[in-house]
Amino acid sequence: MNNKTQTVKGFRDFLPSEKKRRDFVAKKVIETFELFGFEPLETPTLEYANLLLGKYGKEADKLVYTFKDRGDRELALRYDQTVPTARVLAQYQQILPKYFRRYQIQNVFRADKPQKGRFREFTQCDIDIFGSNSPIADAEILAASYFAFKNVGFSEIELYINDRSILFNSLKPFVNDKADIFSLIQTVDKLDKIGRSAVATELSEKKGMDYDTADKLIMSISTALKSKKLSEIIELTKNLGVPDLAIKFKPYLARGLDYYTGMIFEVMIPGYGAGSCAGGGRYDKLIEQLGGINIPAVGVAFGFDRMVEAAEFLKLFQKNEVKTKVLMSIFDLSTRTKSLEIAKFLRENKITVEVFPTEDKLDKQLKYADKKGIPYVIIIGPDEIKKSVVKLKNMKTGDQQELTQTKLLEKLVTL
Amino acid sequence: MNNKTQTVKGFRDFLPSEKKRRDFVAKKVIETFELFGFEPLETPTLEYANLLLGKYGKEADKLVYTFKDRGDRELALRYDQTVPTARVLAQYQQILPKYFRRYQIQNVFRADKPQKGRFREFTQCDIDIFGSNSPIADAEILAASYFAFKNVGFSEIELYINDRSILFNSLKPFVNDKADIFSLIQTVDKLDKIGRSAVATELSEKKGMDYDTADKLIMSISTALKSKKLSEIIELTKNLGVPDLAIKFKPYLARGLDYYTGMIFEVMIPGYGAGSCAGGGRYDKLIEQLGGINIPAVGVAFGFDRMVEAAEFLKLFQKNEVKTKVLMSIFDLSTRTKSLEIAKFLRENKITVEVFPTEDKLDKQLKYADKKGIPYVIIIGPDEIKKSVVKLKNMKTGDQQELTQTKLLEKLVTL
Repeated sequence: MNNKTQTVKGFRDFLPSEKKRRDFVAKKVIETFELFGFEPLETPTLEYANLLLGKYGKEADKLVYTFKDRGDRELALRYDQTVPTARVLAQYQQILPKYFRRYQIQNVFRADKPQKGRFREFTQCDIDIFGSNSPIADAEILAASYFAFKNVGFSEIELYINDRSILFNSLKPFVNDKADIFSLIQTVDKLDKIGRSAVATELSEKKGMDYDTADKLIMSISTALKSKKLSEIIELTKNLGVPDLAIKFKPYLARGLDYYTGMIFEVMIPGYGAGSCAGGGRYDKLIEQLGGINIPAVGVAFGFDRMVEAAEFLKLFQKNEVKTKVLMSIFDLSTRTKSLEIAKFLRENKITVEVFPTEDKLDKQLKYADKKGIPYVIIIGPDEIKKSVVKLKNMKTGDQQELTQTKLLEKLVTL
Repeated sequence: MNNKTQTVKGFRDFLPSEKKRRDFVAKKVIETFELFGFEPLETPTLEYANLLLGKYGKEADKLVYTFKDRGDRELALRYDQTVPTARVLAQYQQILPKYFRRYQIQNVFRADKPQKGRFREFTQCDIDIFGSNSPIADAEILAASYFAFKNVGFSEIELYINDRSILFNSLKPFVNDKADIFSLIQTVDKLDKIGRSAVATELSEKKGMDYDTADKLIMSISTALKSKKLSEIIELTKNLGVPDLAIKFKPYLARGLDYYTGMIFEVMIPGYGAGSCAGGGRYDKLIEQLGGINIPAVGVAFGFDRMVEAAEFLKLFQKNEVKTKVLMSIFDLSTRTKSLEIAKFLRENKITVEVFPTEDKLDKQLKYADKKGIPYVIIIGPDEIKKSVVKLKNMKTGDQQELTQTKLLEKLVTL
């Protein structure tokens, strides 16, 4: 194996077609984040290792890339965006606004065995509001999440929502010697995946209760009522424009219960089966644990790769893809000045133009445009110059039109 | 020292005000790159160390961050964008377009001693055209560079341009036992910094010639004429819209002569004294040396930090800065539904709104907006609801206006 022409396993190149799609999704979510007043934050790729280690649990420590630099400093690659942000909150507490709402889109690293759909470097995309424990902040996160997906182009978006306290209250009566509350949650979390009867079987076989009790447990968590706080959050989220039908109370939603302290939610895209595309909630104790300052927080992490995959699956890119619109061909040395001047004129008017970067046979230039998916080619030969026109070729239909410079622009603006 | 609340020396956090400026510059240069048909590329942060080591020279090898991962692979952090791109060109040669023009904006890493203005992690911003040795490609790079700076907002931009062969031809007659051509270039390169007489002194004291010969050398390189090729490139660049006055032939321009093979150039911003803000040229042999496939190339690297600094220095951000326009205050529990609904309405119409994320005293909310530089605050109390209006407060003048919802939008759109 020649390493020289290989990426390391679990790492990816994004060639233009894929990178453009990713940039499109990023641009769209950022538009929404900024509309909601979130501001961008960037933290370094490398941090002191002791900032990161011990923060994610013992198992996770093995997944943090660490190394000693030449100055014998123990460094680590960014593992997530929450721990560095906790550092930022502590380090700059004097200058950050009291209610810091930030977005952050950066790559993180996991020294993991790469598997299908899991990578060693991948993009995280987070928004959070720090400093407020009001349900208004929860509602802002929920609404910003919904509208970010909307802005990417998803037409159906579902927010599954719960409150940690609801799950705890439902499960508390079923705790027993064999299963504490987290053990019960682990099983209950599988309800959507393996179904009701399989969950009941697991509860009765492994979690210290008979089948009838297991059935009662499932009934209890399936029919639990919204808490007053959760109802309030949902109302405020609707005030902010999220449709009633998009918000689904799911009393057995469990996710990441180790640090969430209140509302929790997941974003699902109907028709895309690979799982939730975003998840978040309130975590009022975590920042203190991580960074030393006591600050309530609510936020969401978008599964950026999944969003891109879901958008591909639902064919959202076809109509949106940014492509170079025109290839300016170079007929010969005698006409190239004119070709460059027309390219300049079109670019001044915001038409994307690639100038074919050398002289070559015209059919080679047309083939090049075709292969690259550039939809129009402009041809300017001696005849066109004599007649003061340019030829515009539609690569899809093969049609050619002779147009004046002004008409050319008029036409390209509408295409 | 408590490492927990520290970034590693040479690494930076970009808090929102700074990050927004950087994002603004990146957005503007990307707009221009895409207008010119450049497409985005992303490569991994980590590569096999043997891909990077030995590519930048022995001194540079010490500056590459390398480490062994848990699978005993020797890995390295991205040191620049050229070597990974050479890998991409070799690895995907079957699917990349024949004339690959890509832009790439990613962070690179140097295990350097950090100094003023030099960091261990910084952003590189490159465009290149691969596969063409025509002067059209050179002109496209020069024009794209010029218009990228223009699009950021710089009004005066200077492109200093030379051809490696001109410098070589001028200096060849002066090569002697004590100084080869690269040694002469080293001294000549200081002409702008230390001036003509200091260069002559250095040449006569250290580079094996008398003062008169040194003087002749300087005269020779200062008065060298453009090559036919360079004149052609300059003409094509003007065809693409770069003003005549912005292009300055500088026959003693030397930069990075180790790998440039033809045209070389630097972008200077008059009034900003910290040096060139971009530099590039043609390098037809480098990709073969790095990646094994023979492919001509011409490109430019933007000094991203310098561009941001120059834009700050010339106060380009004040009028362009993206800021949250409105703080929606929360008067009390009885009115907050209305406040959120108005926030929703404004956001639907692309007005950026931060909703104050909790109930609090109004003057605290006003102070918050003021401190954060949000120019307008909307106040909706019971009186306003009764009258079906909202109050819009201009934080700069203190003026308050009562407006209907429709008038509010009309006003905010124009502000």
